[in-house]
Amino acid sequence: MAKGKFITIEGVEGVGKSTNIDAIKKYLDSKNIPFIVTREPGGTLLAEKIRELLLKIDDDSPVELCELLLVFAARAQHLEKVISPALANGDWVICDRFTDATYAYQGGGRGLDVSVIAELETMVQGSLRPDLTIILDLDPETGLSRAKNRGELDRFENEQKEFFEKVRAMYLNIAEQQPDRCAVIDAGNDIEQVSAAILSEITRRLSVES
Amino acid sequence: MAKGKFITIEGVEGVGKSTNIDAIKKYLDSKNIPFIVTREPGGTLLAEKIRELLLKIDDDSPVELCELLLVFAARAQHLEKVISPALANGDWVICDRFTDATYAYQGGGRGLDVSVIAELETMVQGSLRPDLTIILDLDPETGLSRAKNRGELDRFENEQKEFFEKVRAMYLNIAEQQPDRCAVIDAGNDIEQVSAAILSEITRRLSVES
Repeated sequence: MAKGKFITIEGVEGVGKSTNIDAIKKYLDSKNIPFIVTREPGGTLLAEKIRELLLKIDDDSPVELCELLLVFAARAQHLEKVISPALANGDWVICDRFTDATYAYQGGGRGLDVSVIAELETMVQGSLRPDLTIILDLDPETGLSRAKNRGELDRFENEQKEFFEKVRAMYLNIAEQQPDRCAVIDAGNDIEQVSAAILSEITRRLSVES
Repeated sequence: MAKGKFITIEGVEGVGKSTNIDAIKKYLDSKNIPFIVTREPGGTLLAEKIRELLLKIDDDSPVELCELLLVFAARAQHLEKVISPALANGDWVICDRFTDATYAYQGGGRGLDVSVIAELETMVQGSLRPDLTIILDLDPETGLSRAKNRGELDRFENEQKEFFEKVRAMYLNIAEQQPDRCAVIDAGNDIEQVSAAILSEITRRLSVES
């Protein structure tokens, strides 16, 4: 059986990931492509508990390296229990954030050494990389004000504008380095335009029959 | 100010770590040496929550690599928040289990690649290693029957005898490779003899004035 395709959706808070994932789901259904939708950090019972430790504002917040190792611990669980079996089964996997978010948030935002992130990426993923990464690009100020309207902010959403500018810059840097895998979509456009652009990238890059 | 000494206590379940740590505390008090006692995995609020994820028997138990990364995530937090500041402050640190336990349990017991553990050790600890490691050595069968008498078993204590034989073998292997750092004490002797042997190693190896 052919392996499923692995699509990751990236971007800062309030960029419209959920709405656009809904559009992708409808599209894959219309093509009779079997798929699962999942997210990081999270995607298994244990990995969701690790997500809690990462996002909650707490008296003993994770130091930077602890945060990075927790992210990859959750990812190891998610890959072995959910993502790899689904891909092997021929299902497509749509994942709300993946390792590019680690480069962007922990590398760009926190300033952790990118070579340490790359070391953990190899340790946990081997050669597995997404087939396609959609980077929803938006001015952080606009994204954050959208996120604030949704309710209480988590430990990351509480960061300053400067943090998110570094996150965004790293996302754009990754896209520039790996244009074959990454598609940058302007998330400042209206939602129909954004979704249409995403579906067009999926059709073209992953050779979906129309 | 002189840095404090870092002493770790290792061994399989039921080997008498707690009782012997009490003897070490009394000894250091009698020498007017300032110290803290801590444990792994754990030692901070967050690291204790990670400990819970590691030890609890659950529907979504950590896969091997997730387990290893959780151990080092907790260790990164513990080192930065507790161990390193204490040592810098001139306090001695007595730690119930440390990275040798990772080599023994995840490397020996689970069979994970020792070079991956070494990679994470360098990433998290840099060049920090214990000044003295006391390895309490005991036939696993005796240790496990002691542990069973203490109450409900955790996810590790529930492992089979063969697992603990591999853990013990790895501990002894480490001691053989690093005799300057490690002292193996026969924990099958009566408790006064075991404590006396430990205190004698501390006095001699860490040059405590009598």
